[in-house]
Amino acid sequence: MSALILALFSAIICCSVTEKPSNVSSPNIIIMLMDDMGWGDLGVFGQPAKETPNLDAMAAQGMLLPNFYTANPLCSPSRASLLTGRLPVRNGFYTTNAHARNAYTPQEIVGGISEDEILLPQLLKKKGYINKIVGKWHLGHRPQYLPLKHGFDEWFGAPNCHFGPYNSNSTPNIPVYNNSEMVGRYYEEFKINKETGESNLTQIYLKEALDFINRQTQSQRPFFLYWAPDATHAPVYASKRFLGKSQRGWYGDAVMELDDSVGQILSRLKSLGVDKNTLVFFTSDNGAALVSGPNQGGSNGPFLCGKQTTFEGGMREPAIAWWPGYIQEGTVNFQLANVMDLFTTSLALAGISPPDDRILDGLDLTPVLRGSQAPRTLQNRPIFYYRGNELMAVRLGQYKAHYWTWSNSWEELKKGINFCPGQEVPGVTTHEQKEHTMQPIIFHLGRDPGEKYPISVLTKEYQDVLSRITPVVLQHQKTLVPGYPQLNMCDVAVMNWAPAGCEKLGKCLKVPKSDPKKCDWPH
Amino acid sequence: MSALILALFSAIICCSVTEKPSNVSSPNIIIMLMDDMGWGDLGVFGQPAKETPNLDAMAAQGMLLPNFYTANPLCSPSRASLLTGRLPVRNGFYTTNAHARNAYTPQEIVGGISEDEILLPQLLKKKGYINKIVGKWHLGHRPQYLPLKHGFDEWFGAPNCHFGPYNSNSTPNIPVYNNSEMVGRYYEEFKINKETGESNLTQIYLKEALDFINRQTQSQRPFFLYWAPDATHAPVYASKRFLGKSQRGWYGDAVMELDDSVGQILSRLKSLGVDKNTLVFFTSDNGAALVSGPNQGGSNGPFLCGKQTTFEGGMREPAIAWWPGYIQEGTVNFQLANVMDLFTTSLALAGISPPDDRILDGLDLTPVLRGSQAPRTLQNRPIFYYRGNELMAVRLGQYKAHYWTWSNSWEELKKGINFCPGQEVPGVTTHEQKEHTMQPIIFHLGRDPGEKYPISVLTKEYQDVLSRITPVVLQHQKTLVPGYPQLNMCDVAVMNWAPAGCEKLGKCLKVPKSDPKKCDWPH
Repeated sequence: MSALILALFSAIICCSVTEKPSNVSSPNIIIMLMDDMGWGDLGVFGQPAKETPNLDAMAAQGMLLPNFYTANPLCSPSRASLLTGRLPVRNGFYTTNAHARNAYTPQEIVGGISEDEILLPQLLKKKGYINKIVGKWHLGHRPQYLPLKHGFDEWFGAPNCHFGPYNSNSTPNIPVYNNSEMVGRYYEEFKINKETGESNLTQIYLKEALDFINRQTQSQRPFFLYWAPDATHAPVYASKRFLGKSQRGWYGDAVMELDDSVGQILSRLKSLGVDKNTLVFFTSDNGAALVSGPNQGGSNGPFLCGKQTTFEGGMREPAIAWWPGYIQEGTVNFQLANVMDLFTTSLALAGISPPDDRILDGLDLTPVLRGSQAPRTLQNRPIFYYRGNELMAVRLGQYKAHYWTWSNSWEELKKGINFCPGQEVPGVTTHEQKEHTMQPIIFHLGRDPGEKYPISVLTKEYQDVLSRITPVVLQHQKTLVPGYPQLNMCDVAVMNWAPAGCEKLGKCLKVPKSDPKKCDWPH
Repeated sequence: MSALILALFSAIICCSVTEKPSNVSSPNIIIMLMDDMGWGDLGVFGQPAKETPNLDAMAAQGMLLPNFYTANPLCSPSRASLLTGRLPVRNGFYTTNAHARNAYTPQEIVGGISEDEILLPQLLKKKGYINKIVGKWHLGHRPQYLPLKHGFDEWFGAPNCHFGPYNSNSTPNIPVYNNSEMVGRYYEEFKINKETGESNLTQIYLKEALDFINRQTQSQRPFFLYWAPDATHAPVYASKRFLGKSQRGWYGDAVMELDDSVGQILSRLKSLGVDKNTLVFFTSDNGAALVSGPNQGGSNGPFLCGKQTTFEGGMREPAIAWWPGYIQEGTVNFQLANVMDLFTTSLALAGISPPDDRILDGLDLTPVLRGSQAPRTLQNRPIFYYRGNELMAVRLGQYKAHYWTWSNSWEELKKGINFCPGQEVPGVTTHEQKEHTMQPIIFHLGRDPGEKYPISVLTKEYQDVLSRITPVVLQHQKTLVPGYPQLNMCDVAVMNWAPAGCEKLGKCLKVPKSDPKKCDWPH
């Protein structure tokens, strides 16, 4: 077949796809959420090894957002916020067991995503979207909390973190689901070799994504794909083809495989002719887990500390928006933004009104993506940094005020758990919970992205900033209605002993006696 | 004049330039050496503010070298090494006054670049090159040490750092030279406003560069331009147009102005049609001076500590090579390289044999620039990290072994001088000089660019690495012949009281009585 004929064929395919104008008002949405990947892990954000050519190209074809944040320095609350558009303290993904603690959803957790929360796929569904999650769910693993109960049409992945291997006596291995039934367990049917770092799980998650994109494109229905692979969360893994290929050890190998997968997904969108009708947003759930470094942890670039902390290293995320023809290629936008904005932005793109019966923390980023003037609410928007239900810090413009500081306790530090290895800023990375509500520690993140040089309280600059930040904080706290805390209770009986589908596989385990107690959240 | 005629004219100009084939074998060479600019200050190396569009474009059109080093964590020795192709311990730019101290050329220094050293412009001259230095010299300010005595045909700039203002009684202000005579002094004819950060010096240094390029292109003689502006060395400055324009304070303003200047120089090469006959190499003299941060200091990205130290932050430098048509655009090369290679590479490009009566530390990088297979000597080359005449550390491949560690003394630290603010790696960023020669501290810089996780001495990896690094160190030390230390003696009488040309300007000051003593090098 000559090139000319090929071109003609392409033109026909192209036109048959773009014929339906309804699709243009309902663009496909792909959110790629990495696990524990840091701001500094991408070449385009300064990783010295420069091993992310596909992500760097994605940035060159799209928009880089250097001031993008998660909603929490830990996985579950961050993911709950992405899908609800609300801070964890509102959607219930927090604990009140102790002051200012991070909490998540290990398999002994009793709670999960409340039925009162409205998730993004539930809303998209109204406009005919088909919704799929691939990878880690993390909003509760008990039956009522699973993705297909909360708006997703399809799911391939696991409800919890891929920790293990477990013995199936005191702890079951984490199940992997295909839609509403388990199809195996990590370390059993879905192997991860902790000695060699080998696993082909990213390839499986890639195939699930590509197949879904193919199917939805063929059926000409708009889709929402939430792609959440977990290869960069310890224990990190990569498939054989990538093992040992990076300059950065196993972690770098995992990053290379994910980068390659991103490249394949973008290529597929192009070859299917739907790239001009699809927003792809790449980010991560929280900062790199420095505690797992160097072989199993990433980089937060110039930022202070990492996962679990409310310093920049814990919550500033790599972020790239890609949508050829809609987003101007090669742009950098300094708008302060966060994962909750992806909720509101997706609704705006799909032409769906956001729920008006609750406070949403996400804002509509479409003016930013289009490159037009951002409205005032967006320009002046603060970023809130929480641990549990305590507001630890606030960013407004270039300034960040810390009202509470804490890295972790001396007790944990003595055990070797260090969220700021090699970093110690006196009075800032404190090992006691230090209150500064009367006189917050303020940094200028432009001059000092590493939060190393507090602005003197004696300066006019300090007083000016404080007088602008204080009313923002007061307004936020006055209107805050905390949700019911879902992450307080743990029970060995709720673990993944007998997930739906276990009977068919002969993989049901005996459920032990219920023994509910307060979960212990040391950080 | 119509566009067509313009195009014809351009073609004529173009052809008259490229007619002389002799020029092709003698490419122009431009080395842009920044002052205290850090690896992390460029957008392409991860600066969050992304305010270096011209340098980022230069990288996109050329080659990025993420593993490029200086020869010393301080200005004068680093610059002496660039121009001699030899380590400071060989070319004499070091001190033996105390153990493992950095030294430089303040205006009370007695020594300078030895007549026995052969400088790059002296060699290039043999092939008809016209050589100019614009900006900071820093190889000694006494008459016998000045640039025009060591191979440069032209100079516009200063012999020392732009510290000041001085009172002209106990200390004179630093002179600015045009060739062999002073034309004024910093803070007097050449203003720097320390209250506002304003100075138009970078604009002057830019104009000097552009004028030189214009003249040499017109005369069709190959040229070497060593462009060494000092705006990012504290006290940092920028001209009015750039002040307050960056997100990063005065330092960022200075970076933006330098970035703009780089863009103008590259544009000029293109518009003159000599871009395909000119190697431009951008780098810095040492790591960012964190001690001057945040308003007057830069960023070393993910690396440990900064200027004055032999950690990566002190000696890893931003580096971009640009030569359209010769260097493949958009490439990243991980070759370990350093400023001394610029000496040897320049000679190779000009077809000049390097001196064979002395040991050169620089290697020929032309295979790297061309993108061809690097010879073994280049592939296996070590990087040496010195303080004074002490070998502090060695890098071989991805591994770095520290034989001595020291950030600075407790005494200096108590004065508030901190080369590692916000960074403290136990046993590594030591405040005593710690010897580890029997059992070096070893890092894997791929997994751990921040030098935060020493490899356990109990591992096979440690033993393997040590067995490879040890013979490299022994061989280096066996053949090392230190030069005469030029940075031991200081004398108030040698300061810039009455530089050549001062009579014409009526700016000669009275020379005080000679009082030579050992210089005090606290770091």
